[in-house]
Amino acid sequence: MTSGAAGSVGVAAPRFERVAIVGLGLIGGSLALAARRKGVFGRVTGVGRGRPNLEEGLARGAIDVATADVAEAVRDADLVVLGVPVASMASVVATLAPALAANAIVTDVGSVKAPLIAELEPLLAQRGRFVAGHPIAGTERSGMAAAFPELFEGRCCILTPTSRTEATALAAVRGLWEAVGMRVVTMDAARHDHVLALVSHLPHVVAYALAGEVEARESRGEELVRFSAGGLRDFTRVAASDPALWRDILSMNRVEVASAIRGYRERLAHLESLVAAGRVDELERELERARRLRVRLES
Amino acid sequence: MTSGAAGSVGVAAPRFERVAIVGLGLIGGSLALAARRKGVFGRVTGVGRGRPNLEEGLARGAIDVATADVAEAVRDADLVVLGVPVASMASVVATLAPALAANAIVTDVGSVKAPLIAELEPLLAQRGRFVAGHPIAGTERSGMAAAFPELFEGRCCILTPTSRTEATALAAVRGLWEAVGMRVVTMDAARHDHVLALVSHLPHVVAYALAGEVEARESRGEELVRFSAGGLRDFTRVAASDPALWRDILSMNRVEVASAIRGYRERLAHLESLVAAGRVDELERELERARRLRVRLES
Repeated sequence: MTSGAAGSVGVAAPRFERVAIVGLGLIGGSLALAARRKGVFGRVTGVGRGRPNLEEGLARGAIDVATADVAEAVRDADLVVLGVPVASMASVVATLAPALAANAIVTDVGSVKAPLIAELEPLLAQRGRFVAGHPIAGTERSGMAAAFPELFEGRCCILTPTSRTEATALAAVRGLWEAVGMRVVTMDAARHDHVLALVSHLPHVVAYALAGEVEARESRGEELVRFSAGGLRDFTRVAASDPALWRDILSMNRVEVASAIRGYRERLAHLESLVAAGRVDELERELERARRLRVRLES
Repeated sequence: MTSGAAGSVGVAAPRFERVAIVGLGLIGGSLALAARRKGVFGRVTGVGRGRPNLEEGLARGAIDVATADVAEAVRDADLVVLGVPVASMASVVATLAPALAANAIVTDVGSVKAPLIAELEPLLAQRGRFVAGHPIAGTERSGMAAAFPELFEGRCCILTPTSRTEATALAAVRGLWEAVGMRVVTMDAARHDHVLALVSHLPHVVAYALAGEVEARESRGEELVRFSAGGLRDFTRVAASDPALWRDILSMNRVEVASAIRGYRERLAHLESLVAAGRVDELERELERARRLRVRLES
């Protein structure tokens, strides 16, 4: 893994005069708000199929122009940010690629990298300069209405350049995310997908499964949620994330996610056996691991 | 299941002139603060082995007297609140039972009920009047330093009377928890343990296991937590709960907890198979369950 230094000192923020944000949701909208505030973006065109996100983007000054025509939007852009769901990326890119200017930089914000690069790079190799990326920021909410310019501050952005990625394009995209407050790290796309399966995709599956287990019992007539306390509520907040979005992320990263679930199930089975057998000392040692992790998280 | 009406109207709050809080931690300390504010408690004696909790309780006006002598503390009490960890209850009660006044009401705040009642009722049947209870309130923090009087407001308290429980004692304990803002429900102890295994004990195991899985990989050299986002942090907050406390809760409720883990593992295995096979429509339907649960939680 190659890790770049975070917050490089003395590097001027880039400037993109004409930007197209394709998919004006939480991430794309927050990026537009933040980058404009920092003077990194000139004219911004927002592309989306639904009017509410675009109207909200215009009203809040995130974008100057709103359109549903992706080819038109990218025609004179020097930066194209792909913010659509991962399952929609390939068809969107197939549509816009012929309209790209020769020098346009294209970057994405997808939560899965290797399978996405395999789909997108062939479509973008001949025109434009593609830098695959993943700003690790978000909330359980989605859409331009949930966007805010501070979303990225202090968070980590992973860029996953390939052998085809031009150094100047990579530097420009790095500068963009640093300008909105992120620590930027580069790594191999496969490594990204392994790491995110564990720190993001698995936690979502775990939360969805817990909410699903309780919901299934409630739907069979058990009265449970009225007796719930903080623990369950914390989980259901994560599990409130958009099912269609997560269906696609989990499916696209299926090998790593399935492997992460399998490892987690084995750990649960071990805890179950310790509980059932009343092996309290070993159980306590397992529970202590969590405290060590928290120390790492806070350090 | 017998469910009592919440927030009974027109019933005057009880008054306990001499109260002993045995185990002055988050729950016992918060109860003392809240009940004094409502005028429900007269003189309060705090019992604990560690000085910091007692000093904090005196300084914040939660208690009037601090002692490590549990028999002395309960000798003239008309209410004894057992706030020690579930695994310590039986030995504490064995010590204090001979010193109880004939009319003293004894109640506990343990997170497990049927196994605890089986231990305590024989010790208390001849003296005092025992009402088993569980105020479902708490944070991941513990100790008197974390106590605050609003902890119980709007939360649910489950009382699990047995055939031996006197109606006047049950009414007095119900009045106490209602006075500090709780909705009080009565149910069978076995039903309590089943419900809590699902809405509280299982979520803790799930969080501990997730934190444990990530920590185990970190300790083998994988770099993960620096790339984590909100999802993982939410889990590790729950998993920051006291391992010794949770070791005892999980072990004491072992049959229900093991059964809850087993059901949850089966659901995870199903999700894993849907992810691995790319069965996106079925996967989305499973993820949608969580949204239905959230609607229930918020209604």
